[in-house]
Amino acid sequence: MDNISLIGMVSIFTAGLTMAVGSVGPALGEARAVAQALISLAQQPDEANTITRTLFVGVAFIETTGIYCFVISLILIFANPFWNYVTTKAGG
Amino acid sequence: MDNISLIGMVSIFTAGLTMAVGSVGPALGEARAVAQALISLAQQPDEANTITRTLFVGVAFIETTGIYCFVISLILIFANPFWNYVTTKAGG
Amino acid sequence: MDNISLIGMVSIFTAGLTMAVGSVGPALGEARAVAQALISLAQQPDEANTITRTLFVGVAFIETTGIYCFVISLILIFANPFWNYVTTKAGG
Amino acid sequence: MDNISLIGMVSIFTAGLTMAVGSVGPALGEARAVAQALISLAQQPDEANTITRTLFVGVAFIETTGIYCFVISLILIFANPFWNYVTTKAGG
Amino acid sequence: MDNISLIGMVSIFTAGLTMAVGSVGPALGEARAVAQALISLAQQPDEANTITRTLFVGVAFIETTGIYCFVISLILIFANPFWNYVTTKAGG
Amino acid sequence: MDNISLIGMVSIFTAGLTMAVGSVGPALGEARAVAQALISLAQQPDEANTITRTLFVGVAFIETTGIYCFVISLILIFANPFWNYVTTKAGG
Amino acid sequence: MDNISLIGMVSIFTAGLTMAVGSVGPALGEARAVAQALISLAQQPDEANTITRTLFVGVAFIETTGIYCFVISLILIFANPFWNYVTTKAGG
Amino acid sequence: MDNISLIGMVSIFTAGLTMAVGSVGPALGEARAVAQALISLAQQPDEANTITRTLFVGVAFIETTGIYCFVISLILIFANPFWNYVTTKAGG
Amino acid sequence: MDNISLIGMVSIFTAGLTMAVGSVGPALGEARAVAQALISLAQQPDEANTITRTLFVGVAFIETTGIYCFVISLILIFANPFWNYVTTKAGG
Amino acid sequence: MDNISLIGMVSIFTAGLTMAVGSVGPALGEARAVAQALISLAQQPDEANTITRTLFVGVAFIETTGIYCFVISLILIFANPFWNYVTTKAGG
Amino acid sequence: MDNISLIGMVSIFTAGLTMAVGSVGPALGEARAVAQALISLAQQPDEANTITRTLFVGVAFIETTGIYCFVISLILIFANPFWNYVTTKAGG
Amino acid sequence: MDNISLIGMVSIFTAGLTMAVGSVGPALGEARAVAQALISLAQQPDEANTITRTLFVGVAFIETTGIYCFVISLILIFANPFWNYVTTKAGG
Amino acid sequence: MDNISLIGMVSIFTAGLTMAVGSVGPALGEARAVAQALISLAQQPDEANTITRTLFVGVAFIETTGIYCFVISLILIFANPFWNYVTTKAGG
Amino acid sequence: MDNISLIGMVSIFTAGLTMAVGSVGPALGEARAVAQALISLAQQPDEANTITRTLFVGVAFIETTGIYCFVISLILIFANPFWNYVTTKAGG
Repeated sequence: MDNISLIGMVSIFTAGLTMAVGSVGPALGEARAVAQALISLAQQPDEANTITRTLFVGVAFIETTGIYCFVISLILIFANPFWNYVTTKAGG
Repeated sequence: MDNISLIGMVSIFTAGLTMAVGSVGPALGEARAVAQALISLAQQPDEANTITRTLFVGVAFIETTGIYCFVISLILIFANPFWNYVTTKAGG
Repeated sequence: MDNISLIGMVSIFTAGLTMAVGSVGPALGEARAVAQALISLAQQPDEANTITRTLFVGVAFIETTGIYCFVISLILIFANPFWNYVTTKAGG
Repeated sequence: MDNISLIGMVSIFTAGLTMAVGSVGPALGEARAVAQALISLAQQPDEANTITRTLFVGVAFIETTGIYCFVISLILIFANPFWNYVTTKAGG
Repeated sequence: MDNISLIGMVSIFTAGLTMAVGSVGPALGEARAVAQALISLAQQPDEANTITRTLFVGVAFIETTGIYCFVISLILIFANPFWNYVTTKAGG
Repeated sequence: MDNISLIGMVSIFTAGLTMAVGSVGPALGEARAVAQALISLAQQPDEANTITRTLFVGVAFIETTGIYCFVISLILIFANPFWNYVTTKAGG
Repeated sequence: MDNISLIGMVSIFTAGLTMAVGSVGPALGEARAVAQALISLAQQPDEANTITRTLFVGVAFIETTGIYCFVISLILIFANPFWNYVTTKAGG
Repeated sequence: MDNISLIGMVSIFTAGLTMAVGSVGPALGEARAVAQALISLAQQPDEANTITRTLFVGVAFIETTGIYCFVISLILIFANPFWNYVTTKAGG
Repeated sequence: MDNISLIGMVSIFTAGLTMAVGSVGPALGEARAVAQALISLAQQPDEANTITRTLFVGVAFIETTGIYCFVISLILIFANPFWNYVTTKAGG
Repeated sequence: MDNISLIGMVSIFTAGLTMAVGSVGPALGEARAVAQALISLAQQPDEANTITRTLFVGVAFIETTGIYCFVISLILIFANPFWNYVTTKAGG
Repeated sequence: MDNISLIGMVSIFTAGLTMAVGSVGPALGEARAVAQALISLAQQPDEANTITRTLFVGVAFIETTGIYCFVISLILIFANPFWNYVTTKAGG
Repeated sequence: MDNISLIGMVSIFTAGLTMAVGSVGPALGEARAVAQALISLAQQPDEANTITRTLFVGVAFIETTGIYCFVISLILIFANPFWNYVTTKAGG
Repeated sequence: MDNISLIGMVSIFTAGLTMAVGSVGPALGEARAVAQALISLAQQPDEANTITRTLFVGVAFIETTGIYCFVISLILIFANPFWNYVTTKAGG
Repeated sequence: MDNISLIGMVSIFTAGLTMAVGSVGPALGEARAVAQALISLAQQPDEANTITRTLFVGVAFIETTGIYCFVISLILIFANPFWNYVTTKAGG
């Protein structure tokens, strides 16, 4: 259990956990917005343009939190400053 | 418990956990959207085109978070930079 | 507790856990969609074709997350690169 | 606590856990679909054929996730590659 | 804590846990279906035949997941290949 | 902590846990069915026979999962093959 | 921590836990049935006989799961075969 | 940590836990029944006798599970066979 | 960590826990009954006597489970037979 | 970690925990009763006297469980027999 | 880890925990009462006096449980008899 | 792990935890009150003064529990008597 | 594991946890208020000014608890008195 | 496990956890606001401007808590004062 394995293990676990937990909120949130848009479309077909435009802007907002998690997760796997530090030091 | 087994164990566990947790949100979310689309179809059969089109775009959005998890999970199994590092080092 | 048993144990446990957790979302999600389809069929028998077609496409989408979990689970049991590595090394 | 008992213990526990957790989703999901079918039957007795056909197709879909769990569980008890490896090695 | 007691303990605990957890889903699920059947019977006494037939088929489907758990549980108590292996080896 | 106390402890704990957890589902499930039957009786007193008959068949189905748990629990206390094995061996 | 204290401790704890957990389901379940009976009585005073008879049969069914737990709990305190075995052996 | 303190500690903790957990179900259950009785009384003042009689019989049923827990709890404090055994043995 | 501190610690913790957990059920239960009584009073001011009488009898029933917990808690603090035993023995 | 610190630590923690957990039930319960009283007042301003009187009696009942917890908590801090025993003994 | 740090640590943690957990119940409870008062005000503006008076008395009752927690928390920080005892002893 | 780090660690963790947990109740509670005020404003615009005044008094009450937590949290960071004691002693 | 790493680790973890937990309440609370404002706007467009003004005041109140958490979190990272103490001491 | 690996591990884990937990609240909250905006749009198409403007201001408020978490998370990865301290010290 030297530094490399410790930092590596924690990075792997955190990357997966962040993505997994971070997928729940956006998935449920987008589903709610989409479901509501379908209700509104059935009630007011004439407003289809306004509704779908508002929907896509809203979904984009909601998606951002999922993307934040994906970004953090990829940073931890491929651009992890802690891992770089310990492997550089071990390789030196 | 050398580095290889530690990194390996954590990678395996995280890959499974990420996929497992990450499947709950999209599955429930897509179900909500589909269920709502079926309600709307029954209410407004004339808008079937708009409804199914909005549904599939929405489901695709929701599916993305599940796919992020699947991608992270496969990266951890088959393209894991931490595993590559420790096995390279062990093989050298 | 050498590497083989460690990697093996984690693989077994993760395979089962992934499948178990991953079956909850799709099962509940598909049930929701099917239940809603039955409501819609009772309300609009004339739209049975559109409804069942949308249902099956939607259920297929939902099923995908369950299948991702099944795939990860089988990979961990029968095509596990970590297990292959340690058994190859132990056999050499 | 040699390899055999470790692998065995984890296999037993995982087999049971997978089946136990995996029975919750399908049981509740199928119940929802069946309950809804009974509502629809009472509302539209004339559509009994379409309703029961859609019900059974839907229940079959839902049942699949329970069966995936049962399959994983039996594989872990009777066709476990990790167990085979360690008993073969111990017997050799 | 030799192999026999370890394998035995895990088998006992898993057998009980599997049955216990596995009884919750079917019990609640069947209750839902039965409750709904009673509602439908009160609404449409003339469809009693169709309703009870659909109910019993549905309950049988739901019961299957409870029976899978019971089967796994009995296998772990009375036909456990891991236990057979370790007791055979200890007896030899 | 020899084998006898280990196997004994786990058997006791599992027997109790199985029965305890296994009583929740059937109790709540039967309550739901009974409560619904009382609603239906108040709505359709003329169908009392059909309703109570369907109720009792349904409750019997639900009770089965509680009885499975009770059976597993008694087997673990009074006909436990693992306990028999270790006490036989200790007595020999 | 000899066998006697271990078996004794586990028996005490399990007896209490079984009864405690096992009292929740029946208490809530019976409450639901009683509450529903009171609703039905207020709606259909003329059916008081049928309603109370169905209520008491139903409550008796629900009570059974609580009694199973009470039985298991008393067996573990006063007729515990594991305790008898270890005290007999210690006394011999 | 001799046998006396171990058995004593577990007895104390279990006695409290059993009563604490066991008070939740009956308290909520009785509240539900009482609340419903008050609704029914307000709807059908003429049936006050039938309603209160059914209420008190029902509450008595629900109270039984709380009393089971109280009994188990007092047995563990004042008539605990395990405690008697170890103190007798220690005093001998 | 001699017997006195062990028994003392467990007694203190259990006394507090029992009272804490045991206050939740009655508090919520009584609140439900009181709230319902206020609804009924507003609906049927003429039945105020019957309603408040039934309320107070019901609340007394619900209060019993809280009082059981309070009694157990005080017994554990001021009349604890296990504590008496160990302090007597230590003082002898 | 002598007896004084052990008993002291457990007393402090239990005192806080008892009060914290014990404040949830009464707070929510009283809120429910007050909220309902406000509804009833708005519906039947003429019954304000009966309603507020019943409210305050009910709230007093509910408050008792919070006060039991406060009493236990203060006893554990300022009149703790276990603490007195160990400090007396340590001071002697 | 002498007595001072142990008692200190537990006091700090308990003080914070008590206040944190103890703020949830009153905050939610008061919100419920306030929300209901606003509904009633909108329905019966003429009863504004009675409603706000009952609201503030009720909120004061609910606030008491939060204040109990705050009191316990401050006692543990600034007037802690256990801390006084151990620091006096350490200083002597 | 001397006294300073122990007391410091617990203080930091508790300060954060208290604020974090303590922000949930007030945030949700105030949201409920504000949401209800907006409903009432839409129903009775003429009562806007009474409604907003009652709202702000109510929100101030609810905010108090959040402020209690903030106070405890700041006391633990900047005016912690336990920390002062141990650093004074260490500095002496 | 000297003082610096211990204090540092706890500070980092607490800072993140405080912000993470503390973001849930305000986010959900503000969403509730905003959603309600949109309902009210649709019902009473003429009151748009009063509604949006009340909304923003309310959201500001709710935001405060999130800001308290952010403040605590930044204090722990950049102005942590415990960290300053240990690093000063280590540097001296 | 020197200071570097400890601080690094905790930083990584906290960064991921903060982002993951912190994404749930905003995602669900924004979804609620968007869904409600779609309802309002369908009810009052004429107020589309006011509604979407209020929506976007509200969503921006809600997004802030997610951004606070993202900021804390990035600070912990790329501008972590604790990490800087320990690596500077290790490099010196």
